[in-house]
Amino acid sequence: MNIETLRWSEGRLEMIDQRVLPSQFRYLPYTNAAEVATGIRDMVVRGAPAIGVAAAYGVALEALQQQHQTIEQFTQAIHRGLDVLAASRPTAVNLFWALKRMRQRWVAVSNPEPHTDSPAAIAQALLAEAHGICAEDIAINRAMGAHGEKLLKNGARVLTHCNAGALATAGHGTALGVIRSAVAAGKKISVIADETRPFLQGARLTAWELVQENIPVTLITDNMAGHLMAQGDIDAVVVGTDRVSANGDVVNKIGTYMLAVLAHRHRIPFYVACPLSTIDMTILSGKDIPIEERHIDEVRGFRNLHWAAEGVAIRNPAFDVTPADLVTALITEKGVVSQPNEQRLRELFRSN
Amino acid sequence: MNIETLRWSEGRLEMIDQRVLPSQFRYLPYTNAAEVATGIRDMVVRGAPAIGVAAAYGVALEALQQQHQTIEQFTQAIHRGLDVLAASRPTAVNLFWALKRMRQRWVAVSNPEPHTDSPAAIAQALLAEAHGICAEDIAINRAMGAHGEKLLKNGARVLTHCNAGALATAGHGTALGVIRSAVAAGKKISVIADETRPFLQGARLTAWELVQENIPVTLITDNMAGHLMAQGDIDAVVVGTDRVSANGDVVNKIGTYMLAVLAHRHRIPFYVACPLSTIDMTILSGKDIPIEERHIDEVRGFRNLHWAAEGVAIRNPAFDVTPADLVTALITEKGVVSQPNEQRLRELFRSN
Repeated sequence: MNIETLRWSEGRLEMIDQRVLPSQFRYLPYTNAAEVATGIRDMVVRGAPAIGVAAAYGVALEALQQQHQTIEQFTQAIHRGLDVLAASRPTAVNLFWALKRMRQRWVAVSNPEPHTDSPAAIAQALLAEAHGICAEDIAINRAMGAHGEKLLKNGARVLTHCNAGALATAGHGTALGVIRSAVAAGKKISVIADETRPFLQGARLTAWELVQENIPVTLITDNMAGHLMAQGDIDAVVVGTDRVSANGDVVNKIGTYMLAVLAHRHRIPFYVACPLSTIDMTILSGKDIPIEERHIDEVRGFRNLHWAAEGVAIRNPAFDVTPADLVTALITEKGVVSQPNEQRLRELFRSN
Repeated sequence: MNIETLRWSEGRLEMIDQRVLPSQFRYLPYTNAAEVATGIRDMVVRGAPAIGVAAAYGVALEALQQQHQTIEQFTQAIHRGLDVLAASRPTAVNLFWALKRMRQRWVAVSNPEPHTDSPAAIAQALLAEAHGICAEDIAINRAMGAHGEKLLKNGARVLTHCNAGALATAGHGTALGVIRSAVAAGKKISVIADETRPFLQGARLTAWELVQENIPVTLITDNMAGHLMAQGDIDAVVVGTDRVSANGDVVNKIGTYMLAVLAHRHRIPFYVACPLSTIDMTILSGKDIPIEERHIDEVRGFRNLHWAAEGVAIRNPAFDVTPADLVTALITEKGVVSQPNEQRLRELFRSN
């Protein structure tokens, strides 16, 4: 089964509604930038690379919808679309990376004679760019998988957190892409999946993806990972990331930091699957990356079932920072960066 | 509000049904040992000290119910009652400690002339012993509170895990008893409560207890604790325990170990509130303490809402082991034991 997290169909974007998986499997349609921004904010689509791809399509949709307007109205609409998409979620840098690419493409096709190209032609160019970003994402994930799978031994029991799978990307996945590539290379891999409260991406999405492909997967609650490490039941940790700062600090789903500290204590390698689009060289360290606080109802329970005592205060930070010194290696499409630091990341961007 | 987790009423034991808190508050009645054992296994009552008190009443109830039988039938029934209670849950040592006390009392009142005392007289002696264990538990918790509250500074933000409160004991609580005593001493204390998957004792029970008493409490998911420590939002960790081995290793609710490792990294004191009845000097180290694996449906979701993907394997260890070297101090009714080890625990039992 090939999971198509996002697909282009009859002039609109369709995205799997990840809020209702695994009990329901349905696509929702999107026709403009504001709708896509709402889909990102409400987590119909989530996962840094998938958010980037969705945002790119959001810009293209807006352009297509406005292509019969005057060039001035069209230009204003694209600006508004870029703004509303940029405000959807703050932490994952792929969102801003994808919007920047779309903006650059827009500028390029509007030059050298500004406002001479028609809105319709610009819209087609933006749609082509979005298709390109989507296709590239899958290719990048396969390249990361090819590099990363070499780090996993035959028989490895791999802990992962949240969902960095096909559902978090245009396809194949980042962390789960590494696992898929190891399995494709003939290795016997078993996965331990943290359920990942409060949104339960591990229990709902990672478990679902892996069960579809007959990759052995065992679900645990987030607080069991340390016990399993202490028992010798985990050989490696592989996670995705929403943003990596220039010094190699990794921002990822809340709880990742605790896993990294525990893995360090137990000398278990801690790998981060990370396309170059997720590395933000403009931010020096993880503590400067904005951490989204989401609605407290997510912590109060799940969906319509609220179990928390009435009157309790609640916090809901969605991400945390893992310092670079706890990261054994970043797995990128250009290769593996061991013990990442600023120098090694700068070299990575310079290399071919 | 004074929370009576267990109460004796009209010749039977009544226990708050902790499975349905906080949405429902109800007592369930118990009239014999097998019923109490089922209540313990199904977690109507939970928390090591409360389990011990419940088991003591279970023996007394069995004796009362069988007091009109022949002494042989009565004796067999008590033996069966002790066995069924001992088999209810494996990890909390207070269960075995309470059953041992009841057995010793039984032997004492049946001697020096075996089988001359009437079943009715023995049953009354066993009921008196159960009442004694219950009353002692509250007194012990208040003594722990008095010792432990000195460790908390005015303004302290205290992280706790699971529920080691009034609901885990006959009253006052162990870890929450320390917090209650600090508040009673005039200190401003705020609590951060881990929700504690899968049974959600933190979200349902700890939050409920503290909201009742207007002690400020903030709920988080278990995977957020490390982030809050890294942000400097936690001043101390206080937890309860289900069994402490002779070397000072602490077995407690799954996830405790991860908190201890993180607290150590951030130089945050990690305190364990621990009545002497929870220390098992017959077991040398934590790795020899049996860790209960509970039914996997607890992890699949909560109550009747199952969110995990179909076909995923599941693990559900209910406890983990925190090595003694991560424990800043044990708080007991006889005083505070810093950096616990076998020698210090032996001295503790010898001291007056």
